[in-house]
Amino acid sequence: MAAEGFRALNENTLVEYIKATPSLCSQLGNLENLQIKEVGDGNLNFVYIVTTSSGSLVIKQALPYIRCIGESWPMSKERAYFEAITLQKHGSWCPNHVPEVYHFDRVMSLIGMRYLAPPHIILRKGLIAGIEYPLLAEHMAEYMSRTLFHTSLLYNTTTVHRQEVAKYCGNLELCRLTEQVVFSDPYKESEYNRYTSPYLDNDALAVREDDELKLEVAELKAKFCEQAQALIHGDLHTGSVMATHDSTQIIDPEFAVYGPMGFDIGAFLGNLILAYFSQDGHADAANDRKAYKQWILKTVEDTWKLFEKKFTSLWVENKYGFGEAYLSAIYTDTVFSRAQEKFMKALFHDSLGFGAAKMIRRIVGVAHVEDFESIQDASVRAVCERQALDFAKKLLKERRGFQSISEVVLAIKKVPS
Amino acid sequence: MAAEGFRALNENTLVEYIKATPSLCSQLGNLENLQIKEVGDGNLNFVYIVTTSSGSLVIKQALPYIRCIGESWPMSKERAYFEAITLQKHGSWCPNHVPEVYHFDRVMSLIGMRYLAPPHIILRKGLIAGIEYPLLAEHMAEYMSRTLFHTSLLYNTTTVHRQEVAKYCGNLELCRLTEQVVFSDPYKESEYNRYTSPYLDNDALAVREDDELKLEVAELKAKFCEQAQALIHGDLHTGSVMATHDSTQIIDPEFAVYGPMGFDIGAFLGNLILAYFSQDGHADAANDRKAYKQWILKTVEDTWKLFEKKFTSLWVENKYGFGEAYLSAIYTDTVFSRAQEKFMKALFHDSLGFGAAKMIRRIVGVAHVEDFESIQDASVRAVCERQALDFAKKLLKERRGFQSISEVVLAIKKVPS
Ligand SMILES: Nc1ncnc2c1ncn2[C@@H]1O[C@H](COP(=O)(O)OP(=O)(O)O)[C@@H](O)[C@H]1O
Ligand SMILES: Nc1ncnc2c1ncn2[C@@H]1O[C@H](COP(=O)(O)OP(=O)(O)O)[C@@H](O)[C@H]1O
Ligand SMILES: [Mg+2]
Ligand SMILES: [Mg+2]
Ligand SMILES: [Mg+2]
Ligand SMILES: [Mg+2]
Ligand SMILES: [Mg+2]
Repeated sequence: MAAEGFRALNENTLVEYIKATPSLCSQLGNLENLQIKEVGDGNLNFVYIVTTSSGSLVIKQALPYIRCIGESWPMSKERAYFEAITLQKHGSWCPNHVPEVYHFDRVMSLIGMRYLAPPHIILRKGLIAGIEYPLLAEHMAEYMSRTLFHTSLLYNTTTVHRQEVAKYCGNLELCRLTEQVVFSDPYKESEYNRYTSPYLDNDALAVREDDELKLEVAELKAKFCEQAQALIHGDLHTGSVMATHDSTQIIDPEFAVYGPMGFDIGAFLGNLILAYFSQDGHADAANDRKAYKQWILKTVEDTWKLFEKKFTSLWVENKYGFGEAYLSAIYTDTVFSRAQEKFMKALFHDSLGFGAAKMIRRIVGVAHVEDFESIQDASVRAVCERQALDFAKKLLKERRGFQSISEVVLAIKKVPS
Repeated sequence: MAAEGFRALNENTLVEYIKATPSLCSQLGNLENLQIKEVGDGNLNFVYIVTTSSGSLVIKQALPYIRCIGESWPMSKERAYFEAITLQKHGSWCPNHVPEVYHFDRVMSLIGMRYLAPPHIILRKGLIAGIEYPLLAEHMAEYMSRTLFHTSLLYNTTTVHRQEVAKYCGNLELCRLTEQVVFSDPYKESEYNRYTSPYLDNDALAVREDDELKLEVAELKAKFCEQAQALIHGDLHTGSVMATHDSTQIIDPEFAVYGPMGFDIGAFLGNLILAYFSQDGHADAANDRKAYKQWILKTVEDTWKLFEKKFTSLWVENKYGFGEAYLSAIYTDTVFSRAQEKFMKALFHDSLGFGAAKMIRRIVGVAHVEDFESIQDASVRAVCERQALDFAKKLLKERRGFQSISEVVLAIKKVPS
C-alpha cells in the first residue's frame, strides 16, 4: 500500500487497508467480525479501534493539518514518523509502559499499535473522576527515568547522540507548535488565547505584563529550542497516559525531539498539579475530594522521588558503560556522587520551571485541560484556575529556591482554597 | 574531477587538478608561472599556496586522518565540507574578516580560497613576536558578533535553526576530538597528555584530582555537546587568525558546529591570556614585554566590550526581525533590556568558563601552543605555564563571581610574576 501515496482513511476505507496489510491481519486473526470505530478525542489525529473476535489493535493516522482546527492550520503528517520511531525507541527501553507498534506506514502516516482495552482510560479522565492509581508514580518514574536516561549522553556516545539529534530536528513543525503555545502566546496578545472571562481577564493581562515571568520563560524557551539533552516525549500531560489500577501506558509521542529532560518531567508533574487545583470544582456532597487531593500531592512527591532514585540508579549501573558525559576515569567516587547531585538539582529546577510554564499555558493559552473545562460554573472554575495560575507563576519565578519536591508540595498545600 | 573519487594531492598532482578546474583557473589568470608550495603548519590538513604572475589562491585539502599523527588516527575528510560551508556562511555575514571561497570539491575534500598574502601572518606568531594589532579587538568583536548573532535564534526562525543544526550534526568526528582533548583528557591520565616535566608533574596531577574543577568541566562539556546556540567556528584560537596591522582574517573553521557561543569567545580570549602569560618567557634585554602585556590585556578587555556592544546593537536592530527567541510582542521596552542584560551576563560567564578550559588543555593536554613551546628554557616555560594554569583554574571555578571583563583583567594583573 505504501507506494500508492497518501490517502486520508475513514472507518470504511480502513477495512481495505487492513486486509492488504499482513502485519495488521496477523494481529487481528480471523477478520470476519471486523469492527472499526473512530475514537480520536485528541486534538490532532484520527484514532481507530479495530477489533475482531480473535484480536484487536489501534490505527492512528496523521493528516496534514491539525484535526481540531482544520485544513487552515497545516501540520506536517511526518509527525506520525516521529511518533512511530519514538514509540519504538521508548518502547525498547520501557516495554511495560509503551504500547507495542505492530505496523508503520510512513507514506500513509499511519501507525498500527496495541489497543489499550478497557478498563484503560485516559489518566486525565481518571483524575477528574477522583480515581486513585496506586502504581502511577512508580510507573511514570520508571517510564521517564528509563527513556530519558537511555537517550542521553549519560548512556550514549556523542556519535550516536548527534546522529539521533539530527534525525529528530526534522520534527520541527511540532516543536514550533510547542514554542508558540507554551512559550509565546500566553505572554502576548494572541487570537488563540482563551481564558475564563471575565473572571480571569485581569489575571491573563497580569501574565502578559509580568516582566519577571517573561525573563524566566525566555530562559526555558531557549532550553527547549537549543538543549538536546535526551529524547523527550514532548507532550507528556495526563492526556497522553492511559491507566488502569495496575497498568500505566504512555501514548502519543508525536512531539518527540531531543530536548531538555525537565520538559517531560515538568509536563507530567504540572498536569498533576492542575488536576489538584481542579478538584474543588469537582467536589460534591458525596465526595469533598480532600483525601483525593492529598493522594495527588503524594503522587507528585513520589513521582519525582522515585524518578530521582531510578534515574541515579541507572546512572550508577551504567557508570562504566558507553556514556560520554561523565567518563569513569574522571568522575571517580566522591566527585561522581557530587556530579550526580549537581545534575539532579539542575534537572529538578528545570522540571519545576517547565511544569509551571505548562500550567500557565493551560489556563491562559489556546489549549485548556478538561480538569478545569469540565467545571460547569465559570465562577467556580475561575477560582480554581486562579489558584493554579498564581501558584505556577510563583513556581516559575522562585523555582531555584525549592530544595526538594517536599517543599514544593508544602507550598501547594499552603495555597488557601 | 569531482566524479573521479578522492585522491590525496601533492604539489605536483595539484597542477593538473587546477588546470582542470575553471573556477581556480579564472582566479589565477595566466597559468604559465604557476608556483605551488605546501605550507600547512597546522595539525590536520594540507595547505598549498598557489601563485601565478596574475593571481593567487590557497588550496586546502583534508585527508582521512590527522596529519600530525598519521593514518593511525583516522578523521573524516568530510570536515572539509563543514569548513567550506562555514567559511561561506560566516563569510556572508562578515566578508571583511573571512577569506572568500573560490571553489569547493566535496569528493576531493578540497577548498580553494583567497590567499592571505604577506604581510598576513598567523596571529599567534605575531603575539610571540610582540607585535601590536591596533584593530584586532575591533575586528574580532565584529567577526564574533556578526557570525554568532546571525546564526542564532536571535536572528533566525526555529525552522531554519533546526535545519542547520541537523546538517552540522554530521561534523561529529571533529566535535568528538574537541570533547576528548578539551573536556576529558586533561582531567584523567591519558597517553596523549603532555606537560613540561618534571616541573609541572604535580600541577598536572592536581588538575586530575581537582573535584571542583571536574564538576565545572562537566557542565561545560554538557553545554558543548547539547547546546545548539549558534554556528560556532569551533577552533577559534590565535592560530586560526591571520593578521596584519589593519587586516584580521579568520581561517580554519573545520570544527564548526551549532554549539555554545561562549566556546568561540572563550577560545579567543583564553588564547590571548595564554599569550599574556607567555610574554615573560620572551622578554629580553631589548624588550621586557611589559608594555606589550598591557596591550594584550587591553585587547582582552576591548574584545569583550566591543563584542558586547556590537552583539547587543545587532539584537536591537533586528528586534522586529525573524528571530524567534525574544518575540517583540512579548519583550517590549524595559523587559527587552533586562533580557539582553541577563543573556549577556550568562554568555560572559560561559565565555570565561570555556576560555579557562581552553587554557588548561593547552598546558596539560595533547596540543600545546607555540607561545609557550617556543620558550626554550623548560624551567622558565614551566613558571609561565603554571601562572596561566593557576589562573585558568581559578577562572573556571569562580567565573560567576566576575561581574565584568575589567574585573577579569584586574585578576590577571594581580597574578605575581
Ligand atoms: N493504543 C491505544 N489504545 C486505546 N486507545 C487509544 C490508543 N491510542 C489512542 N487512543 C485513544 O485515542 C485518543 C487520541 O489518541 P492520541 O494518540 O492522544 O491522539 P492525538 O495525537 O490526536 O492527541 C486517546 O485519548 C485515547 O482515548
Ligand atoms: N587562506 C590562506 N592564506 C594564507 N595562508 C593560509 C591560508 N589558509 C591557511 N594558511 C596557512 O596554512 C596554515 C594551516 O592552515 P589551517 O587552515 O590552519 O590548517 P589546519 O586545519 O591544518 O590547522 C595556516 O597556519 C597558515 O599559515
Ligand atoms: Mg493526545
Ligand atoms: Mg498537548
Ligand atoms: Mg498527539
Ligand atoms: Mg589551523
Ligand atoms: Mg584546522
